Amino acid sequence: MLYSIEAGGKRLRPILMMASAESFGGNYQSVLPIAIALEMVHTYSLIHDDLPAMDDDNYRRGKPTNHRKFDEATAILAGDGLLTYSFELIMRQPNITDEQKVYIVKQLANASGPKGMVAGQILDMQAEKKNIELQALEKIHTLKTGQLIKFAIVSGAYIANASKEQMEALDTFSYYIGLIFQVQDDILDVTGDPTILGKPVGSDEENFKSTYPKLLGLEGAIEIKDYYVKKAKEALQTAGVTQTILEQLTDYLSDRKY
Amino acid sequence: MLYSIEAGGKRLRPILMMASAESFGGNYQSVLPIAIALEMVHTYSLIHDDLPAMDDDNYRRGKPTNHRKFDEATAILAGDGLLTYSFELIMRQPNITDEQKVYIVKQLANASGPKGMVAGQILDMQAEKKNIELQALEKIHTLKTGQLIKFAIVSGAYIANASKEQMEALDTFSYYIGLIFQVQDDILDVTGDPTILGKPVGSDEENFKSTYPKLLGLEGAIEIKDYYVKKAKEALQTAGVTQTILEQLTDYLSDRKY
Repeated sequence: MLYSIEAGGKRLRPILMMASAESFGGNYQSVLPIAIALEMVHTYSLIHDDLPAMDDDNYRRGKPTNHRKFDEATAILAGDGLLTYSFELIMRQPNITDEQKVYIVKQLANASGPKGMVAGQILDMQAEKKNIELQALEKIHTLKTGQLIKFAIVSGAYIANASKEQMEALDTFSYYIGLIFQVQDDILDVTGDPTILGKPVGSDEENFKSTYPKLLGLEGAIEIKDYYVKKAKEALQTAGVTQTILEQLTDYLSDRKY
Repeated sequence: MLYSIEAGGKRLRPILMMASAESFGGNYQSVLPIAIALEMVHTYSLIHDDLPAMDDDNYRRGKPTNHRKFDEATAILAGDGLLTYSFELIMRQPNITDEQKVYIVKQLANASGPKGMVAGQILDMQAEKKNIELQALEKIHTLKTGQLIKFAIVSGAYIANASKEQMEALDTFSYYIGLIFQVQDDILDVTGDPTILGKPVGSDEENFKSTYPKLLGLEGAIEIKDYYVKKAKEALQTAGVTQTILEQLTDYLSDRKY
């Protein structure tokens, strides 16, 4: 469990959650335990996705994947352990009310479970080696990565006491942020630098995966990404955030090199 | 997910939870959603334990295991989905207070996570093909199956408003119930009828597993089981339960044929 947690990564989801809390006048420290639990859920999903029965990846975050470092059984159990402990961790926080804990766990389980991330991974595997439309591709990404990103942003605002209307606008913002993240992921798999990425490029092509560059061309992928950025920033305005950090993160995610 | 849930099984943990609630004057229906969530966690653990990287079992509850019926990736995700959804299910119950939900999820995650069931499975695999002592064997079983059984019994009593002293006595009761269950499991793998069990016998021997009959002989295993039954019934008396159903279940578990 610690091997994969300590392997690093962008810590994107915790950063988004803390940025969201601060954007509504909250303190990033108030969401830190939830952000840690979220990163544990994300890490569990990477460990399981990398398994030979799934994406069969040998490297992750510049290091051997969990099942390559240890073995498959250990990797499966490390993932199971991280997922389970993430819920316990939230329950153990003294500075979060019971009502907040119930809301947070309900949302986190919903985002990562069989109607969220797990469904996305199933659909992703079913779509491999098939030609799918842009709409189906967006659905997969919205479930597989978008739901957890949405959880990060919306629950950060929730802990900072954002209004219902603000949270609805953030819901829209999160939707586009998830897609921006994924388009750039696909673009980097074509144009990225493997030494900066910490993993080989071209694996989508190799695995016959449907991607934005494949469906729209590289130019088309960049164009739709710019459109998503515009829509995301509009949603931020609707939410009336008091800081620019979420806007800065939108640009960062759109332009990131790894 | 449904394939493995609907495959049946003894439903031991839900039954123990409902029996425990009734023993303290509660209504079995009040714990039903938690009992269902618990059975989902148990089923997830069976799906993952059966995987080729773990116990590599082909049959479970008289039917092909999940990864044999579908494939490994689906089985891993079905387990992940069941585990995650179990927590969401508890959170969605209108008739359980937020305080109770927080307690229940904390206990369930603790019992099934890296300090409970997941630790037990890791220790179990590490002990394969090794000679271990009775004490180490008891530790494995206490973690691997005992923790969830304890959760069933103690949380059933909790929802039925048992006192702290009663819950402590039930903790002791649960410890012995878990061991009784496991000794009988080991005995059935030697003396059981495969057509009644729904799975082949002799697999412990084949997998070089440490078992009670192997460590103590068949007679010795039966003797220690009788001792556990005596201790379990003593703890029930200390708990001052008002019905005999938990005592009857103790005898049932000790004498069960499958």
